[in-house]
Amino acid sequence: MDVKKRISRRNFVSSAIAAGAAAAVLPVGTLIAEVANPFRSGYLLQDAPGLLPTPSWKDQGVENLTRSPHAKLKNIPVRAVTIHEGFWYKRREININKSIPSMHDLLESNGRMENFRRLIGKSTAAQSGPVYSDSDIYKWTEAVGFTLQSGPYPELRASANKFIDDVVATQLPNGYLNTYYVGDKASQIMLPATQTTGHELYNMGHYLQGAIAYYRGTGDPKMLEAGMKFVNDFLLPNYGPAPLKPIVSGHPEIEMGLIELYRMTGDKRQLDLAGYILRGDTRIELPAHRTIYMFSGTPFTERTKLEGHAVRAMYACCGATDYYMETGDETYLKTLNTLWNDLTASKMYITGGVGARQAGEAFGDAYELPNALAYGESCAAIGNMMWNWRMLAVTGDAKFTDVIERALYNGINSGMSLDGTLYCYRNPLAFDPATGDTIRNTWYDTTCCPPNLERTFASLPGYFYSTSADGIYVHLYDNSDLDWKLENGTGLKISQKTNYPWDGGVNLTVTPAQTSEFTIYLRIPGWSESAQIMVNGKSVSGAKGGEYLAVKRSWAAGDTIQVKFEMTPQVLEANPHVVEDEGRVALQRGPLVYCLEQLDQPNGTTIEDVSVNIGHKASDGFKSEFKPDLLGGVMVLQHEGELIQYPDSRNSLYMQYQQDRPKNKPVELTFIPYYAWANRDKSPMQVWTQLTKV
Amino acid sequence: MDVKKRISRRNFVSSAIAAGAAAAVLPVGTLIAEVANPFRSGYLLQDAPGLLPTPSWKDQGVENLTRSPHAKLKNIPVRAVTIHEGFWYKRREININKSIPSMHDLLESNGRMENFRRLIGKSTAAQSGPVYSDSDIYKWTEAVGFTLQSGPYPELRASANKFIDDVVATQLPNGYLNTYYVGDKASQIMLPATQTTGHELYNMGHYLQGAIAYYRGTGDPKMLEAGMKFVNDFLLPNYGPAPLKPIVSGHPEIEMGLIELYRMTGDKRQLDLAGYILRGDTRIELPAHRTIYMFSGTPFTERTKLEGHAVRAMYACCGATDYYMETGDETYLKTLNTLWNDLTASKMYITGGVGARQAGEAFGDAYELPNALAYGESCAAIGNMMWNWRMLAVTGDAKFTDVIERALYNGINSGMSLDGTLYCYRNPLAFDPATGDTIRNTWYDTTCCPPNLERTFASLPGYFYSTSADGIYVHLYDNSDLDWKLENGTGLKISQKTNYPWDGGVNLTVTPAQTSEFTIYLRIPGWSESAQIMVNGKSVSGAKGGEYLAVKRSWAAGDTIQVKFEMTPQVLEANPHVVEDEGRVALQRGPLVYCLEQLDQPNGTTIEDVSVNIGHKASDGFKSEFKPDLLGGVMVLQHEGELIQYPDSRNSLYMQYQQDRPKNKPVELTFIPYYAWANRDKSPMQVWTQLTKV
Repeated sequence: MDVKKRISRRNFVSSAIAAGAAAAVLPVGTLIAEVANPFRSGYLLQDAPGLLPTPSWKDQGVENLTRSPHAKLKNIPVRAVTIHEGFWYKRREININKSIPSMHDLLESNGRMENFRRLIGKSTAAQSGPVYSDSDIYKWTEAVGFTLQSGPYPELRASANKFIDDVVATQLPNGYLNTYYVGDKASQIMLPATQTTGHELYNMGHYLQGAIAYYRGTGDPKMLEAGMKFVNDFLLPNYGPAPLKPIVSGHPEIEMGLIELYRMTGDKRQLDLAGYILRGDTRIELPAHRTIYMFSGTPFTERTKLEGHAVRAMYACCGATDYYMETGDETYLKTLNTLWNDLTASKMYITGGVGARQAGEAFGDAYELPNALAYGESCAAIGNMMWNWRMLAVTGDAKFTDVIERALYNGINSGMSLDGTLYCYRNPLAFDPATGDTIRNTWYDTTCCPPNLERTFASLPGYFYSTSADGIYVHLYDNSDLDWKLENGTGLKISQKTNYPWDGGVNLTVTPAQTSEFTIYLRIPGWSESAQIMVNGKSVSGAKGGEYLAVKRSWAAGDTIQVKFEMTPQVLEANPHVVEDEGRVALQRGPLVYCLEQLDQPNGTTIEDVSVNIGHKASDGFKSEFKPDLLGGVMVLQHEGELIQYPDSRNSLYMQYQQDRPKNKPVELTFIPYYAWANRDKSPMQVWTQLTKV
Repeated sequence: MDVKKRISRRNFVSSAIAAGAAAAVLPVGTLIAEVANPFRSGYLLQDAPGLLPTPSWKDQGVENLTRSPHAKLKNIPVRAVTIHEGFWYKRREININKSIPSMHDLLESNGRMENFRRLIGKSTAAQSGPVYSDSDIYKWTEAVGFTLQSGPYPELRASANKFIDDVVATQLPNGYLNTYYVGDKASQIMLPATQTTGHELYNMGHYLQGAIAYYRGTGDPKMLEAGMKFVNDFLLPNYGPAPLKPIVSGHPEIEMGLIELYRMTGDKRQLDLAGYILRGDTRIELPAHRTIYMFSGTPFTERTKLEGHAVRAMYACCGATDYYMETGDETYLKTLNTLWNDLTASKMYITGGVGARQAGEAFGDAYELPNALAYGESCAAIGNMMWNWRMLAVTGDAKFTDVIERALYNGINSGMSLDGTLYCYRNPLAFDPATGDTIRNTWYDTTCCPPNLERTFASLPGYFYSTSADGIYVHLYDNSDLDWKLENGTGLKISQKTNYPWDGGVNLTVTPAQTSEFTIYLRIPGWSESAQIMVNGKSVSGAKGGEYLAVKRSWAAGDTIQVKFEMTPQVLEANPHVVEDEGRVALQRGPLVYCLEQLDQPNGTTIEDVSVNIGHKASDGFKSEFKPDLLGGVMVLQHEGELIQYPDSRNSLYMQYQQDRPKNKPVELTFIPYYAWANRDKSPMQVWTQLTKV
């Protein structure tokens, strides 16, 4: 496709100006799709002499960290890993065949694309959806962009192209692009108050992420070019430190977009603007409750705890980590570590979900982790995974991968129904249908979570491995083939054969293009206190849960690694400060957190009245059974418990304490993986179950 | 004061029109203050033939139920009871000497009166405060009105008169009165959307309550007349069933105001409009979440549970009970009983607080009663008391008085600091200063709670007794003198001498104007399983907790009643559905719920880590000691407990369960009454304490 053709479709924006915009990127007439890196001309290396060229679009990962000086680990491209039949294969197939296509139709039927088409004369529909609705289109496009990195899927590509054509056509001559602040509302564009609540930059952040993923999936830069025009023509010349106009991140997201763009263009102004936003613009005065809620507007490096809107906080942390990877500013790393410790010591659900409070979709106080009322927005769990992915890149520390896995297998995976058509906004850890809540829904007017889940599952292959200067890190385990290269250019294939997470054994076959010495860092999950590792049949010592085991040797084609993790069910208790979990335990097996659904228990068993009998050795007494026909195939855990018998007064709200209790009744309890809950008839569910008092 | 003089002060509204308005009430020139019931002319008996005349302003109670056909009990006037030195005396003295005067100054310094003065040319200050700010002035005026029913307090009266003059002067010629919907916003007056969120009728409901209390305190009808003009000239002719304009109660409150006005005027249109509002105007279509939140807009009698904004729900229930008392419509009573059962079986804190959720200041689901996160707005506890007061009037059932006492002594009394200058908006049942929250504050921008507490304490004498056709009900116990009459007109004095609630003994002396047979209904609180009652030294049997003991006899001057309630500390547990209270107990002694404040415990004792050792007889092991110098004088409870020793892993958020625990350390625990918490240095507090596992 040539620029002229693209311009001819921009029938709303004056084509003369549009041509001018395109010219700022590339000379008119250049066949953009044929250029490996169209952005080098005009931007790349201008402000960053001596940097390596960015890889071609095909070779860029979820993040393009190739030249990031403070990223110890570098992403591999999504397309470098093919996931085969197994745990994630099913989820990803459904994502491609059901979720993404049905979300396309829902975005259409709910008028989200009409918001664009109205502006280019293709629709007369009224504006629909909240102020951040544009971002849903962009996240969906990002999901397609990642999907196209795993295969051609021409229908998805055609659908996305249609969206992109209409989206890009709405760009104003000055580069601004947004469907909400139009007409009467155009006077509010980028006013401080609008930036604070209007999500213009949030939308553009998602636009950039979507455009970049789509470019990496297809090589088609159309959407990306328009995003660059927004950034380079509208944002950079007008917003920033005085004498430019003030800027604030009402909902952090633009930081990630700007920095990922910088990683492709080398245009340091994009990085600098992200840094300026992270520092907070003092000219926009905001009340404390607002900057807490936004997790922005004040210097990021002055933050000492996680608070406010959870997704905003997680995205801000992502952006700040990205900023650190490019700048090496240690004050950021120090703050990030402080916040991470705050998160994992007192504010994260055992599912990896974050953001306890419904009010403000916010972090609660330390240890404020209610179960039935848990907010645990799917987007926040995804933000948690994205942030830990970045911290992992900085450090290579497996503690971050543990959080990624915990969130991915539990609090994120729970967010989409097994059939791929229903989504959770909230991910509570206990549920009673009597409340009238419906947790899984086809559509939300604020439909941020569904396409967020879709883009996450679509990008999953990119999270399996990273490279480092001395070798390769294995982060995730599932049946898969890696076809990539070490940082020194040596080709490397790794195949994984496993029944993980149902089984703890993984067989890896390593095939370097030529025999060479490098290190394979094998992740030993934190839940596996130790692990048995054999290389070519010989035991390797030193495996420790929560660390990467470095296996440095001369690797030759066909070398094998056998890994065996501990899969004994684990009985976990929470810090006693978590009041709702007091006297309760949660079960975990491998990376999977388990729960009770009432419909799996014997008749007459109300799960809130049961306790589980844990003996002196907590791992005793479990029966594990894989049920291929249950919930798409799950390992079920069974354990003896008791149905607690209460005094007759139990129907009162408050009653005299009675020391003498009726004798409890024995009952066999059946636990299923948390991610699979609420996929059958509505039934009470709980993750934390009372412990029998012995 | 004569009408002419009043009119001359109405320098903003055209005096001709104002004169016309006054004329509708009384012939110009009549000395209103000298007329026992100025409202009879023009309104009274027009639509309600055969009703008794309403009592003079001096003889009207908190509610004027004299002629309410379905009120079994009738209020006594506030001035009929004088409370002497004792538990409530101190609170009420501080209310009059500190709280009400300082709130006057705060309302002034925060511009709440300037909102009125600006409209009459006396101020150039900008509008300040939220849309419901007028109501704070009215509630404060109501507090003064009730106070003036207990004594002259000329300074308070002068302050209130100044407020009233400026308030009334802002009334528009058509009767409308509101400081927010003026100028540009006048076009929004009483539009359906404005009614839904704009609090116009809420403000007027409080206006009417304030005006009525002030009239009952002073006989001065100025404020009341303007309120009647709003109702009779603006509201009744324009809003109601078609062809009138639609009306909805965005925040219920007007229902109570209209019905209390009806009780004074006999103008049935006022009652009918309240009924129309309670039924919901189907012409104003509202989404379900809105009518849930508002607890209005749909037929009250179709409600099946308490939900939505707690204060709205409580005020709606008050209005509906008032409506029942006038109409006898059994569908209302049925709904009210359903809602009351829902409240007391699953949604009320042990403190009488209601409204568990911060989000929407709302009722939670059944058994959703978090402690640290409890919202328990002071206004909602007051609403709970007001509703139960009305249900008590309907039925004479002591179960309602139990809730009144629980709320009054705990969840309401906690709302004001002991020195009367700090107020709680939230009343949590657990608190950790590390959260950074400050629970007691001098001022809130939404300052609904402080004047609400003030009006409640000011009206308290009116809650001590009610009359019935056959005698008198004794609801509350404290040192006091009643000087009133039976419904047959026989004068009756009752004096109470007691150290209640610290002591369970109450000595009552009964002095009827002449010896006569009637029944004294003595309330036996629900927490006192039985009680010893002696009349003139002779035992009376039949006393049962949670009931009124009817003592029917011929009473002569100087007859005595000796009451002795059980004051053994009680150990209470919550329904096991309340997850945060699981394995925990709360202590109560008499009507007072107790709590732990960390600063009362031995050094090194963190209260969230303690458990209380309750033996087989729960009441064993308590030491009660009255400490006159502590917190204004409180009975302290002490009991042995343990400081729980956790495994070293306790600093993790999640950890492997360990069956073997370190041995706990013994510790003596000191409990104080909940209402007195947070009156010293900031310290952790909890009502529900872990129970030692035995």
